[in-house]
Order: sequence, then C-alpha cells, then structure tokens
Amino acid sequence: MNLAKVLGTVVSTRKEESIRGLKFLLLAQVDPQRKPTGTHVVAADAVGAGVGEMVLYATGSSARQTTLTDNRPCDAVIMAIVDSWEVEGRDLYKKGRDD
Amino acid sequence: MNLAKVLGTVVSTRKEESIRGLKFLLLAQVDPQRKPTGTHVVAADAVGAGVGEMVLYATGSSARQTTLTDNRPCDAVIMAIVDSWEVEGRDLYKKGRDD
Amino acid sequence: MNLAKVLGTVVSTRKEESIRGLKFLLLAQVDPQRKPTGTHVVAADAVGAGVGEMVLYATGSSARQTTLTDNRPCDAVIMAIVDSWEVEGRDLYKKGRDD
Amino acid sequence: MNLAKVLGTVVSTRKEESIRGLKFLLLAQVDPQRKPTGTHVVAADAVGAGVGEMVLYATGSSARQTTLTDNRPCDAVIMAIVDSWEVEGRDLYKKGRDD
Amino acid sequence: MNLAKVLGTVVSTRKEESIRGLKFLLLAQVDPQRKPTGTHVVAADAVGAGVGEMVLYATGSSARQTTLTDNRPCDAVIMAIVDSWEVEGRDLYKKGRDD
Repeated sequence: MNLAKVLGTVVSTRKEESIRGLKFLLLAQVDPQRKPTGTHVVAADAVGAGVGEMVLYATGSSARQTTLTDNRPCDAVIMAIVDSWEVEGRDLYKKGRDD
Repeated sequence: MNLAKVLGTVVSTRKEESIRGLKFLLLAQVDPQRKPTGTHVVAADAVGAGVGEMVLYATGSSARQTTLTDNRPCDAVIMAIVDSWEVEGRDLYKKGRDD
Repeated sequence: MNLAKVLGTVVSTRKEESIRGLKFLLLAQVDPQRKPTGTHVVAADAVGAGVGEMVLYATGSSARQTTLTDNRPCDAVIMAIVDSWEVEGRDLYKKGRDD
Repeated sequence: MNLAKVLGTVVSTRKEESIRGLKFLLLAQVDPQRKPTGTHVVAADAVGAGVGEMVLYATGSSARQTTLTDNRPCDAVIMAIVDSWEVEGRDLYKKGRDD
Repeated sequence: MNLAKVLGTVVSTRKEESIRGLKFLLLAQVDPQRKPTGTHVVAADAVGAGVGEMVLYATGSSARQTTLTDNRPCDAVIMAIVDSWEVEGRDLYKKGRDD
C-alpha cells in the first residue's frame, strides 16, 4: 500500500460496463513527510474518502479484493482513510492537525 | 488506473492467436495538469476511444477483467473515456474545452 | 522481495471491512549498503516486526499468500525479519551489530 | 503492453524444469520515436520474433495467458510482432522502412 | 524476466511459516552490458544458483509458478542460471569467460 492525498474526482460517462457505479478519485502519492512523490494514481473509492484526506491505497490484483471492485477492470482502490502515522515515536501526520 | 492521452494505433499481423480482434492503442500517460509523464503504454481498447481523447487505463491482471481481454495475454486496457477531472474544485480537464 | 527498515505505524479507523485486525507498518526500502532507496511502502505485518528492524516484504498478489492477508485488499506484507545479509562473504548487515 | 526491439537471445542450461523449451529473447523497450527508454526485459517468445524486429510484450500474470507460458514462472512474453504504429496520422514506425 | 548477478544471501529466523525452507538470495539487476542498473531484489532460489553467477529471475505471481514457491508469499524467484547472452551476434556475456 502507499500513502496518498485525495486531490479530486475523475468523471467518465463512456466506460466499460462493469465499472458503472464505481467512484474514481485522483490521488497524489506522498512520502512520510507528506511531500508529493510525483506519482499520481486514479483509484476506486471503497471507503467514502473526501478531497484533502490522507488515504491508503492498494494496487494490482489486491485492488479487486473488495465487494465493490471484485471482477472489475480496476487496479487501484482506496481501502483506508488514515488518522495518523508515526515514525520513531513522532507523529508525522495527524488528521485534523495537519490538514 | 492512470490518466493518458490516446496518441495513435499499433498494427500487427503476426501475433499470438488469442489476441486477434483486439485493437491496440498507443497511450501517453499524463499528470493532473495534462503534462506527459514520459511513460508510454500500449493498451487494448474496451470502449472505442479515439486519437486525442483522454482515457483511464488499468494494468496487470485487472486489464483482463473485461469480456474483450479475458484470458488473453493483455496487460493494459482502456476502460473509460474521461469527460473531466477536477482538483480542489477546479476543472483541470474538460473534454471539448481542453482538447 | 525487498529489504526495508521499519519506520513506524499507520493508524486508520475508517477502512475496508476486510482489513480490520491487520497491523500496517511504514517501511523505507534499503539497498544492500542499508542506504534508503527513497521508496516507501505501507505493509501488513505477518511476523510481529518492530520499529527499527530490517525486514523482507513481498508485494502484489504474493502479499496475499498468508492466512493474515488472504482475500484482503492488501498488496504488501512483511514476511520475514532479517538477521543478516552478506555480499561476497562480508556481512553488510547483522542484527544487533548494525541497528 | 510495451513496444520493444529484439536485441538478442539468452541461453541457459540449468533452469527450472517447467520452462524447458521456452525461447528467451533480450528486449530493449522503445518509446514512440523508437528511442530506447533504458529499460531491458527478457521475454519468452510466443510468435517467432527475430533479432532487430519491433515487438509488443506483456508482463505479469498476463504473460502466462499463452499455451506456451501457461503455469510457468515466466513474467514477460512477446505476443505480437509490430508492423507499424502511427501517432496523429503519421507513421512513426513502419516495418521494412525503419529497420 | 530480468538479468541479475547473485550478490549474496539473506538470513532470517523469524519468518512467515510458509516460507521455511526457501533460500533467499540478494540480486543486483544488470543491463545487457553487465552494468548494475541500481535495482536490487531478494529472490527465492529454485535452481541452486551461487554467488557471482548471472541469473534470470521472474517477479509477481509468476514467481509462484514453481513447486518451491507455490502458495507462498514470495514475489521473486530465480528460474535459470544464465550461460550466455548475445546481442546482434556478439556474446556480451559468456559464463566462465566473463565472471
């Protein structure tokens, strides 16, 4: 999994039949210091994440291990909204404090 | 998934039997500002995308989760044509306006 | 698999139902000389690793081949705590000596 | 999939039992302008490609979706020999003309 | 698959139950000129490779397609010891001559 910040939404009307109903969010991967790594990903949202929130996303076949994404051509999924992470005892991110 | 612009088509007559009938498009991955990231991918087209359109493509085993690509040696598929994406309330891409 | 150092923990309360109970650790990938490569990963912990320890982690569908991660949207798992590695007869890392 | 040029062959006598009979070719990935990207891959050949030809190769589990590679520890396969590709109406590669 | 040189071994006593018995080797990926690319991988050894040998390794789910690695959380496997590779008719590596 990787840490990322939710940047916004991607809208599409012409799409593969099986992905109808999925919500796609645009993510910017971040490092432990919350700096963007330069990698962007579009992920299906399995947890109701909002713009600006820090999330964990999984890629590859693991992204299909949710009821939402099962058997769909979806290779990235947000599977958690992050409350905080700490490195060697210090909180480098705390939801609310660092948004 | 990643955002990409359709650059053109790839033609092949000598190919693995199982991929006959698939249409392969050449894609240039783009970042949220629509700038090419330098990554190119050849993807099977599951949605009838045209040259110049912005699309979403999935890779890996997820690229085989369409009736078109099921059980085929295909590791990238276009699964949506993008209408727009927005970042923090601003449309960074709008089909028609930004093509 | 890759070598990595455990940096800390990631906490999340709103998450995909199926990953409840998994512990997520933040890892910094290292090269054979123990220098960070700049790549970070969040991995489920299958072995009880602690902050500061050197570990081996697996990614992709292989990360789901543990009872802990089976059928879960989890794409990285710590599957071993490393005691030592040697390159051409020299120990480049030895647990205890180099922590 | 990616575009690549076939550079040559890789020979091995001591190998995993299940890959006996597979022919392995050394590939240099190219961009749409036919410039090497710096990425090299060794792929099983499912189509009888020759040195100097431009090919399409698939990676990951998709590389096992051929009768040749099914159930084998093989993560890259050449699944097509490329005749041409065009970008915005111009042929950037044409077999015969550009070899 | 990729070409790599075997650098050494990784030792671990606390590990996921299912990987007991696997031998893990530390690899440095090389390009066709035998120069290290900077990428390192830890792979299970399915062929009895030794330090200093050039090998082919497979990653992802393909790394589990050996009796040794089947159903194990292992994402890289050495599936061949390389005798030689040639590029456009010239041997760029020959076991014995270039070790």
